[in-house]
Amino acid sequence: MTEPQPSTRRVPLDVVILAAGQGTRMRSKLPKMLHPVAGRPMVGWSVNAAKTLGARDIIVVTGHGADQIETALAPEGVRFVRQDRQLGTGHAFLVAARALQGGADVLLLYGDTPMLPPETLARMLEQHRTHGSALTVLTSELPDATGYGRIIRDENGEVARIVEEKAANPEEKRVREFNSGVYVMDDRAPALAERITDDNPAGEYYITDLIALYRGEGAPVQAFRIPDAGEVMGANDRAQLAVLERLMRERINARHMRDGVTITDPASTYIEDTVRIARDATIQPGVILRGRTVIGEDAVIGAYSVIEDSEIGAGAVIKPHSMLEGAVVGSGSDVGPFARLRAGANLAGGVHIGNFVEVKNATLHEGVKAGHLAYLGDVTIGAETNVGAGTIIANFDGVNKHRTDIGAGVFIGSNSTLIAPRAVGDAAFIAAGSTVHEDVPEGALAVARGKQRTVTGWSRRYWNGVRAQVERKLPWLAGWLARQSE
Amino acid sequence: MTEPQPSTRRVPLDVVILAAGQGTRMRSKLPKMLHPVAGRPMVGWSVNAAKTLGARDIIVVTGHGADQIETALAPEGVRFVRQDRQLGTGHAFLVAARALQGGADVLLLYGDTPMLPPETLARMLEQHRTHGSALTVLTSELPDATGYGRIIRDENGEVARIVEEKAANPEEKRVREFNSGVYVMDDRAPALAERITDDNPAGEYYITDLIALYRGEGAPVQAFRIPDAGEVMGANDRAQLAVLERLMRERINARHMRDGVTITDPASTYIEDTVRIARDATIQPGVILRGRTVIGEDAVIGAYSVIEDSEIGAGAVIKPHSMLEGAVVGSGSDVGPFARLRAGANLAGGVHIGNFVEVKNATLHEGVKAGHLAYLGDVTIGAETNVGAGTIIANFDGVNKHRTDIGAGVFIGSNSTLIAPRAVGDAAFIAAGSTVHEDVPEGALAVARGKQRTVTGWSRRYWNGVRAQVERKLPWLAGWLARQSE
Amino acid sequence: MTEPQPSTRRVPLDVVILAAGQGTRMRSKLPKMLHPVAGRPMVGWSVNAAKTLGARDIIVVTGHGADQIETALAPEGVRFVRQDRQLGTGHAFLVAARALQGGADVLLLYGDTPMLPPETLARMLEQHRTHGSALTVLTSELPDATGYGRIIRDENGEVARIVEEKAANPEEKRVREFNSGVYVMDDRAPALAERITDDNPAGEYYITDLIALYRGEGAPVQAFRIPDAGEVMGANDRAQLAVLERLMRERINARHMRDGVTITDPASTYIEDTVRIARDATIQPGVILRGRTVIGEDAVIGAYSVIEDSEIGAGAVIKPHSMLEGAVVGSGSDVGPFARLRAGANLAGGVHIGNFVEVKNATLHEGVKAGHLAYLGDVTIGAETNVGAGTIIANFDGVNKHRTDIGAGVFIGSNSTLIAPRAVGDAAFIAAGSTVHEDVPEGALAVARGKQRTVTGWSRRYWNGVRAQVERKLPWLAGWLARQSE
Repeated sequence: MTEPQPSTRRVPLDVVILAAGQGTRMRSKLPKMLHPVAGRPMVGWSVNAAKTLGARDIIVVTGHGADQIETALAPEGVRFVRQDRQLGTGHAFLVAARALQGGADVLLLYGDTPMLPPETLARMLEQHRTHGSALTVLTSELPDATGYGRIIRDENGEVARIVEEKAANPEEKRVREFNSGVYVMDDRAPALAERITDDNPAGEYYITDLIALYRGEGAPVQAFRIPDAGEVMGANDRAQLAVLERLMRERINARHMRDGVTITDPASTYIEDTVRIARDATIQPGVILRGRTVIGEDAVIGAYSVIEDSEIGAGAVIKPHSMLEGAVVGSGSDVGPFARLRAGANLAGGVHIGNFVEVKNATLHEGVKAGHLAYLGDVTIGAETNVGAGTIIANFDGVNKHRTDIGAGVFIGSNSTLIAPRAVGDAAFIAAGSTVHEDVPEGALAVARGKQRTVTGWSRRYWNGVRAQVERKLPWLAGWLARQSE
Repeated sequence: MTEPQPSTRRVPLDVVILAAGQGTRMRSKLPKMLHPVAGRPMVGWSVNAAKTLGARDIIVVTGHGADQIETALAPEGVRFVRQDRQLGTGHAFLVAARALQGGADVLLLYGDTPMLPPETLARMLEQHRTHGSALTVLTSELPDATGYGRIIRDENGEVARIVEEKAANPEEKRVREFNSGVYVMDDRAPALAERITDDNPAGEYYITDLIALYRGEGAPVQAFRIPDAGEVMGANDRAQLAVLERLMRERINARHMRDGVTITDPASTYIEDTVRIARDATIQPGVILRGRTVIGEDAVIGAYSVIEDSEIGAGAVIKPHSMLEGAVVGSGSDVGPFARLRAGANLAGGVHIGNFVEVKNATLHEGVKAGHLAYLGDVTIGAETNVGAGTIIANFDGVNKHRTDIGAGVFIGSNSTLIAPRAVGDAAFIAAGSTVHEDVPEGALAVARGKQRTVTGWSRRYWNGVRAQVERKLPWLAGWLARQSE
Repeated sequence: MTEPQPSTRRVPLDVVILAAGQGTRMRSKLPKMLHPVAGRPMVGWSVNAAKTLGARDIIVVTGHGADQIETALAPEGVRFVRQDRQLGTGHAFLVAARALQGGADVLLLYGDTPMLPPETLARMLEQHRTHGSALTVLTSELPDATGYGRIIRDENGEVARIVEEKAANPEEKRVREFNSGVYVMDDRAPALAERITDDNPAGEYYITDLIALYRGEGAPVQAFRIPDAGEVMGANDRAQLAVLERLMRERINARHMRDGVTITDPASTYIEDTVRIARDATIQPGVILRGRTVIGEDAVIGAYSVIEDSEIGAGAVIKPHSMLEGAVVGSGSDVGPFARLRAGANLAGGVHIGNFVEVKNATLHEGVKAGHLAYLGDVTIGAETNVGAGTIIANFDGVNKHRTDIGAGVFIGSNSTLIAPRAVGDAAFIAAGSTVHEDVPEGALAVARGKQRTVTGWSRRYWNGVRAQVERKLPWLAGWLARQSE
């Protein structure tokens, strides 16, 4: 995402985010503002927008579920003010305004409008400043704006007032331009907010009173009208939340496709906003990409793979049904299907990880191959080492994990077990089925398994003992058994 | 789902379900009525509706594929009558009517309209009874009802007659209200059905003749018009079946979202009608929930997991790509990714099951951990026991399965094999790579593996034997080999 | 797909496909024409259509990315001509026309219109020939054709000319019939193409000039108007590519549903055009079917399975999350979930492959069972052999793969390793945990594992050594340890 260009600023920008509402229709213990859209809490999208705009100060007004919201946003470096009683948006803004430093433009946002892009807000701010507006209302149009406050313009095209549904006359009800509730205001806002009253039928403090208060000062109040009303859409229940999730998904996927990424089925591809993908990468159906994931050029991410906080090198191939968390995959490596790379899995280039293989906290150098049914935990493996099917690094002694160090060019036979801590030298050879409990020097062979004993004629006696069942269940074997008895 | 409230009944309710049609456009060996929608045969939805309404008697009229339908519905406690010749809906109803006990209201349903909710039928029945109707037709409206029988109302708003497409004059063709074919009738229906004739151009017995027969008695015939025509939608081919499937999916998912469940992508989430989910559970994309599955509060079901007839406790986490059938997962346990829990897998709380682990017919007590590549079949495992990577319970001797009993606090080393039947005492310790074929007492160490032999210099000789290939395929090893020979 | 019936031909058909364009909005190193739709490069769909029509000669005009396109289409048996400078469609056609043998109808197609079905082209060709047309333009209608060349008809309904957007007067702009650019022409086309000039404001050679040139000869120019404008849709960026992908998916899935295949969720099912599916097969959500895959009658393909170039027998069940490439699964076998069948996996009937099992280059006879966590590579396994959980065929010695031959009725105990090359006779018995490195004769028992030693009281000493950690992490074990010390 390209960062919006800041306009030439005369004054700093402070942002107030209202996040005190309850959201009972979510039917949730979690405050509405913390419900995630594309992996980020709704209020987090507003905080993110404020930061992208270069806000000096971000104040979040909390009320219902204040503790949960403050805990969730603690790492974001925002300030919180509590609105202890829900007396209306005007009151919510006032409690924040009293905490502002002053001398700044003030942008009012909400904790439940995650779709509003920073780019739109930057353009709004730009207009606000270049047009010399005192208060700018973000507006949009709907074919039928029933239920919304309507924007009534004066003869100069400025905003005369905002009429709520209940108070609107028939002509006003036909107005399609509506109030989003998002405002940017000059530094008079805190002082004017003190003059909002609850002298109205509902006995609430309305933020829309600021329009009249500004105009009473002779200050220009303008509208910034956006073409896509969906950008100010909120969510009051889980069905609407799922709609936001879908729209955000479409927006993110459209951006990647524009940048030259092939997404086979954008409707079933789930990419968080924080993910970066280079051009000519291919994302197959059902893929989920989360967090700080970075996908390199020409990489292919196979169907239904789930990748979180991982780096996939250029040209690497992640086959279907793989799961990566906190892993690094070098250029040209291939992983999966049905592979699991966990935190600290660090694969160089040309590494091959096949099916039913788990790698955790492990450094695999160039050309390591582990193709089948293996657990590689807490281990370093040198270049070109071949890890046989069924190999297990026994890294846990019941209370602690230990590391294993395996050299380059080692051949680890199938179904081997290496009990950590252990060192295996370069070019060593471990015989299949071995349980290695002593270090193996460079170039040595280690064999640690039982010797084979063969007992002829044993099967006939064994199966005869369960002959009735053999005859019922295993016709071929029953035939063989019959021939043996003759 | 809240059960519809039964109205104050004057008489019992009998239900007739017509399910004799062929459905040739399905191009199937399976009768049309048995094709499933959201996991339940189409006719099963009608039977289910009849039961929800508290029907005294449910009669299913079968014809094409009668044996298959009767077998499929055998557990449902319904009665069957066969319509041996397909002489029309009036005839189909008649063969059922002759089997009715009498003295009841009769509801006529169809085997291929699975979308009709019991709640709608309950409201229809309520209107039928409170309005004193003799026959009530379920109707709806379409912008263009071409092809359907149109509802012609009399001056009192009652149903005068139903005009089929072919017989309709231009004015009647403009009527948008159509006949769904679903009727509720008072106890005169069986007697009146005897008077339906095939005296019409097609030579068929039409159920719609009942309108005129009732009106001929001076009895009121009313309509119950529903707003959503989709509720009486049927399916004649597999494309229409897929549409019903999608609509039913949307309906079920909407219900869960209303109840406070987060469904990330409702368009790609497949939940059968029988599943129960507590609020604040999260269902990630691609999840399939079937049968008698119950999901607890705050549980998270990871992407692409398939869960059937299982109980997931509160706060449990099923990671992506897991498959559960007939399992129980205790509160706060975590399972997956790539885990398989089969019938009889019974996990207490705080159990950890990791990737590539299969659990079957097994009881795992509090805090058991089996993180990687294991098969736990026919086993009981005590609290806090740690099952190492690659552990296999060898429960099968070729013909029978045997049980293994493992105590609490046991440490099972990686890649171990336990040959059932076997008992391992509390706090026992099994060394990695062991094949345990004798019982292990409490607190004992069992080691059952070969001793390690180390043969120095072996690798050089081995790789020299295939030197040409090493040089071609393994450059690092070739370099090492070259240095060894010097 | 039923092959379109060739009309009675008077002359052969040659096809020219223009594929020289750049497609900069794809933002790709790959030429636009090579971007795949439903698994086949866009230009490949046009080549496929040409072949289905029985074309004598197919000439592809290349320019941008010519080398890549020619390499990709090399196996198709088409001819290439290079358009070194991009002087317009008229010029592109001319360079191809000069390479034609002559004496044929010439069909002009494009490398980026993959949705155009051969059936539509066959009907166009049929009309062209039966109506005695000299040049037939494929057209369609859009509610608003802005941007397209409009079809201007003469008083006989023939095509008078095509007006480009820029040159159109207001009346012409209201014309909804537009030029697709697809033409079929009689054998005068090459000669007439020589007469196209660049005498126009853009200085380009326009293929549309052929209309006037044909009409100048007094030859009839007709339109073939198709109802679905989507059939001539192209893609200029990746978002449009995703739209084509979705439309193609819907088309392919609709065909299978019409043929009697149940597809639970066609919107999330990905089937390539080359796949064949018998009736009454069921395809669950998220399934991906590629290449030469053939699915038999009544087979069930479980959710999220990915199947490529494989044959699934009648009644076979592929459980969810399975991946098959180049495999054969016999009738009534079951595979998965989480199974991987790779190239050369050849399963007879009644075979059972369970979870976390990989099969590669292996022949499994009737009734073989490998239910859990196994690697079966380069092996033949006889009828009714049971492969225990965790079994590994060690087929690789570091440089070469070797084969293993296992007889019928063999019992392979769990966690066994068989080191190839190895032969195991019929009805042999391999004890669990064995590493088999010698052949096992028919009916013999092989045991190759360590003997069990039991050291009583060992655990108490072991855990005492890490007592502080035990007390912190493992409360049950700490309690046990405390009791031991008393």
